[in-house]
Amino acid sequence: MHITQYTDYALRVLIYLGASPERATIAEIAERYQISRSHLMKVVNQLVQEGYVEGTRGKGGGIALARPAAQIVIGEVVRKVEGDFTLVECFGADNQCRIAPACRLKGALYQALQAFLAVLDGYTLADFLPNAEALMALMQVPTAHPVQLHRPA
Amino acid sequence: MHITQYTDYALRVLIYLGASPERATIAEIAERYQISRSHLMKVVNQLVQEGYVEGTRGKGGGIALARPAAQIVIGEVVRKVEGDFTLVECFGADNQCRIAPACRLKGALYQALQAFLAVLDGYTLADFLPNAEALMALMQVPTAHPVQLHRPA
Repeated sequence: MHITQYTDYALRVLIYLGASPERATIAEIAERYQISRSHLMKVVNQLVQEGYVEGTRGKGGGIALARPAAQIVIGEVVRKVEGDFTLVECFGADNQCRIAPACRLKGALYQALQAFLAVLDGYTLADFLPNAEALMALMQVPTAHPVQLHRPA
Repeated sequence: MHITQYTDYALRVLIYLGASPERATIAEIAERYQISRSHLMKVVNQLVQEGYVEGTRGKGGGIALARPAAQIVIGEVVRKVEGDFTLVECFGADNQCRIAPACRLKGALYQALQAFLAVLDGYTLADFLPNAEALMALMQVPTAHPVQLHRPA
């Protein structure tokens, strides 16, 4: 059982932006986490569309949280970015399992999924940021192959 | 977010065996659900190893539940057959995410996972079987390409 890497990256971006004292760039976040910049680009685009992140262009530009961290509910983010909650075949539109019309397992799994999301609804991004400095410090560790961060001086 | 097809099949096998009035064969279950017989074989092997299913050979042989349905806890089955609960990278041994030592998201996700499993711990196989006849009836529907069921007469 996994959540997608895409959702994982979305949460990492939000944590980074919440912890960072200034605007950031996608290149910088990709470098700090050592993850794919093109993957991050898609993730950030959706976060902008969903109203969690805002970007400004030009000198001093970059991306930042579009609202206070305390107003970013983690369960809500996961629902929006994870997208596919087809836990098992019968959750999907193309279900082929014959017993679906009478099967009570689906209801139990659905209830379990709701419990999963309900826990995450109990957290906002702010809950993950009391140790923002420690998080940023962990990301300052020099990398083996540092890249130029296109961040305005 | 998904659980594996393997776990889905394990649960389907248990439901089938719980609903069936007599011993079944893997070929029969594969035919009724129209799923791969070789996949089912692996699933049933594990269910036998875990003590949920027992098999007998020879005439009148086949597989059946190894214990009463009320003693088969769904959360326990899912824990055993799903195997990999690496929800995100940092749950795994080969985590590369730098902020893991200070990240509180992992704890929240772990708590959500426990809530998911706790719901399933509240169900036994018996909870899915009050309508066993309806389940069996759904599986009796003739298939487009019926195969010979190697079931003893």
